[in-house]
Amino acid sequence: MSRFAIQGGYIIKSARDVVADKYIIVEDSLISEITDVLPLDIVDVLGGPLDIVMPGLINTHTHAPMTLFRGIADDLPLMAWLNDHIFPAEAKFVDKDFVYLGSLLAAWEMTRSGTTAFCDGYFFEDEVGKAAREVGIRAWLGEGILQFPSPSLADPSRTIEHSREFISRWMEDSLINPTVFPHATYTCTPALLSQAFELSQEFGIIFQIHLSETLSEVAQIRDRYNMTPVELLDSIGCLAPNTLAAHCVILSSDEIALLAERGVSVAHNAESNMKLASGIAPIPEMLARGVNVSLGTDGCASNNNLDMIGELSCVAKLHKINTMDPTVLDECTTFALATQNGASALNFAGGILDVGRPADIIVLDGTCPNLVPVHNPVSHVVYAANGSNVKDVVINGAVVVKGYRSLTVDEEALIRECRKIQKKISRI
Amino acid sequence: MSRFAIQGGYIIKSARDVVADKYIIVEDSLISEITDVLPLDIVDVLGGPLDIVMPGLINTHTHAPMTLFRGIADDLPLMAWLNDHIFPAEAKFVDKDFVYLGSLLAAWEMTRSGTTAFCDGYFFEDEVGKAAREVGIRAWLGEGILQFPSPSLADPSRTIEHSREFISRWMEDSLINPTVFPHATYTCTPALLSQAFELSQEFGIIFQIHLSETLSEVAQIRDRYNMTPVELLDSIGCLAPNTLAAHCVILSSDEIALLAERGVSVAHNAESNMKLASGIAPIPEMLARGVNVSLGTDGCASNNNLDMIGELSCVAKLHKINTMDPTVLDECTTFALATQNGASALNFAGGILDVGRPADIIVLDGTCPNLVPVHNPVSHVVYAANGSNVKDVVINGAVVVKGYRSLTVDEEALIRECRKIQKKISRI
Repeated sequence: MSRFAIQGGYIIKSARDVVADKYIIVEDSLISEITDVLPLDIVDVLGGPLDIVMPGLINTHTHAPMTLFRGIADDLPLMAWLNDHIFPAEAKFVDKDFVYLGSLLAAWEMTRSGTTAFCDGYFFEDEVGKAAREVGIRAWLGEGILQFPSPSLADPSRTIEHSREFISRWMEDSLINPTVFPHATYTCTPALLSQAFELSQEFGIIFQIHLSETLSEVAQIRDRYNMTPVELLDSIGCLAPNTLAAHCVILSSDEIALLAERGVSVAHNAESNMKLASGIAPIPEMLARGVNVSLGTDGCASNNNLDMIGELSCVAKLHKINTMDPTVLDECTTFALATQNGASALNFAGGILDVGRPADIIVLDGTCPNLVPVHNPVSHVVYAANGSNVKDVVINGAVVVKGYRSLTVDEEALIRECRKIQKKISRI
Repeated sequence: MSRFAIQGGYIIKSARDVVADKYIIVEDSLISEITDVLPLDIVDVLGGPLDIVMPGLINTHTHAPMTLFRGIADDLPLMAWLNDHIFPAEAKFVDKDFVYLGSLLAAWEMTRSGTTAFCDGYFFEDEVGKAAREVGIRAWLGEGILQFPSPSLADPSRTIEHSREFISRWMEDSLINPTVFPHATYTCTPALLSQAFELSQEFGIIFQIHLSETLSEVAQIRDRYNMTPVELLDSIGCLAPNTLAAHCVILSSDEIALLAERGVSVAHNAESNMKLASGIAPIPEMLARGVNVSLGTDGCASNNNLDMIGELSCVAKLHKINTMDPTVLDECTTFALATQNGASALNFAGGILDVGRPADIIVLDGTCPNLVPVHNPVSHVVYAANGSNVKDVVINGAVVVKGYRSLTVDEEALIRECRKIQKKISRI
C-alpha cells in the first residue's frame, strides 16, 4: 500500500471550505485522512507550510492533439480559420503518430499546470488514451462521430461501430473513461445522433457534443430542420443527465430552462469563444436556472494553451464586464466551475478534497511572488495565480509532477519530437 | 565594462521583426550588437537555442504598494469596494514601511514576470523609488496630488510643493524617473490640475492622471463643471504629448479624436476594468485614430497580479469579443501595446531590441510545456505564455533575474516580512 502526505498552509477542500495548516493523507488512490499532525509512520511529504493545496482542475472540453497546432493561425474569422488553416492542416498532418505526440504534449502541459482530468474528443482517440495513461492523467475520451469520412475512418457508415469498438477497449480502465462523441448537430444526421445517444445509454457513459457555438451554426440548423440545435437534440431525446454540451453560446431563456430540466451539463469555453469572437455564453443565467456549468479550454488552435487557472480568471472577469456587475461569478462560484462542477459533469467523485474521495490533488507554490501574501487562497487561485505556479500534482494517488518536474514524461525527448514536427508544419 | 550575451532561438526585436538563432550582445547599459555568432571573448551567456528573447514589458499604470492588499476584497461594486474596504485599509495600514515593503514585493513580482519598467502613482513614493532601485527595475514614479489630506501629506495646500521636492530628489537618477501625478479630475480642483501640469512642463516630465474610468466619474464632473473629464483637462491645457491618461473607459468619438490630436498617451487597464465592471475602453477606435495606447495592470487590489503577459492575452480577447471581430487587436498590435507603445508613452528609448537601445531584455523559457512547439513566437507571448515562463531578466544592462531566481531580492526574507503584515491585515 502506498501512503504519503501533502502539507498545506491552506487546503481548499472546496470553494467554501478552506482549512489552514493541515496534512492530507493519501492511501493508494484515495484520501484517507485530513489531519493537524503528520502521522509518525509517514516519511514522504509533498507541499509545505506556505503552499495552497486544492483539488486538481477538471477540463471538460478540449482536443488534446491540437497542441501541435498552437499558434499556426490566429486573429482570423471563424470560417477562414477553419477552412483555410485548421482543416487543411488536419488533412495534411493528422495521423496516429500526430495524435499520440500531440496528446503526450497536452497531457504534459495539463499535468504541469494542475489539470488532473480532462474530457477530449478527436480522431485516433486510442492514441489519446495511450498518452494519457502514460502520463497518468485521468481522461474521458470520445472518438469523433461524423456523417462524413474522418482522418481515422474512411467509411462513415461504420462510425457507430467504430465508436463502439473504441468504447469496448477502454471500459475497464481505472484512469481512462470512454465517452460517445458525435461532433455536432451540423455534422451528424438526426439518425446518427440518436444512434450515438443509444450507444451512450447502452454503456452508461457520457454523451459529449458541440452545441450552439456560433450564430451561423444555429442559422444552419434552423434552415435545415426549422429548429435550434438544442430543440433538435431534445426532439430526438439526446438531452439527458449524461449529456455534456460544449460551448452553448447562443441560447434563449427557454433553452436554458430546458437544459436545466433535462439535467444537461455545459462545458463553458470562455477564452476560445472570445478569441474566435463567437459570442458570450449566458453563464450567470444558466447558473441561476440550475444548469451544471463546468469549464473547458477547447483545443490549442483556438486558445492557445491548456491553462485552466488562466481560464478561471478570464471567466470571472468576462461575465462581470458583460453584465456590468462585479458581483457576478464571484470567486467561490468560479472556483467550483473548474473543480466540483467538472466532476459532476463527468459523473466523477473527484473535484472536492475529502476523506474517501479520489486523491486528485495539486499544490500551488506559496513562494511565487504573485501569491504573496495570502489573504484569501480561493481569490488567489481565481484572480492571481497561473498554471505555472503548480509545483506538485497527484492523480489517482500517484505523484505525476514533483517540484515542477514531470515524473512520467521524458521532457527533453518530447520537446525534441515536437520540434521535428514543428519544422514540417511551421509557416515561418 | 560589463559585456555578455543573450542567446535566442527566436528574438522578437519588435512585434513585426522576429529573427531566429541569434545572440544579443549587451555592453554596459545598451545593446551593442545582434549577431549570428557568439564573439570569442564572451563567456557569460543567458538564454539558449530554444528560448524566446524579447523586450522587457512596460507597465504604464499601477500602484505598486497595493500588492500587500492582493485579495482583501473581490467581487464588489466599485463604491463598496473603495469605501468599505480599500480606503479603510489604506487609512489603517499605509505608512512609509508599508509602501516600501509592498513596493519591494511588487518589484520582485514584476521583474520575475518580465516587466522591466513601470509607471506608478501612490503615496510615500520615495519608498517606491527606494524599492525599485534596490531590485533594479526602471520606474516612472509620481507622488499623489490631491485636494484633500493624504496618508503622506496632512496639509493639502503643500501638495504641489511636496511633489516638487519629490521630483527634485530623483531627477538625476539613471533608473528612476519622477513624474507629476494628480490623482483625477474629481479629486483635484482645476487650479490644482493646472499647477500640476505646469510642474510637469517645468521639469519636462510625464503628467499622469486617472481619466474617465467610470460612468459615475463622468457624471460627477459633468454635474460640477458641465464638461466631461477630457473636456475639462483640455480646457485648462492639460492634454499634451507628456500626458499619460489611465483607463479612458468612457470616451466619445470626439474625445478620442481630441486625445489623438493632442498627442496624449493612454494606459489601458483591461483586467482591472473587467473585474470592477467599469466598462470596456474603446481601444480599437483609439488605435484607428492614432492614439498611442499602452497597457497597465492597475494595482493588485483590483486585478490581482502584476502579470503583463497575462494582461496581453486578456486584452486581445476582450476587444475581439466586444466587437465580435476576431481580427481586432491582432497579436502584433497587442504585443506592441505592452512594449514599444509603453516606451513611447514614457518618452523612453526602450520597448524595442536593437543596437544602441537600452538593454531591457527578457528570456522566456522555451522548455515550458505551454510554449512547445513554436510556430509563431509573437503568438506565444500574446496567447500561450504567462509571466511565470520568464526565466531571465536584464534591466539597464544588469542581470536582475537568472534561472527564475531574483539576484537582487532576498526572496525568503521578503516573504517572511509580507507574512507578518498579512497577519495584521487578513480577515481570515
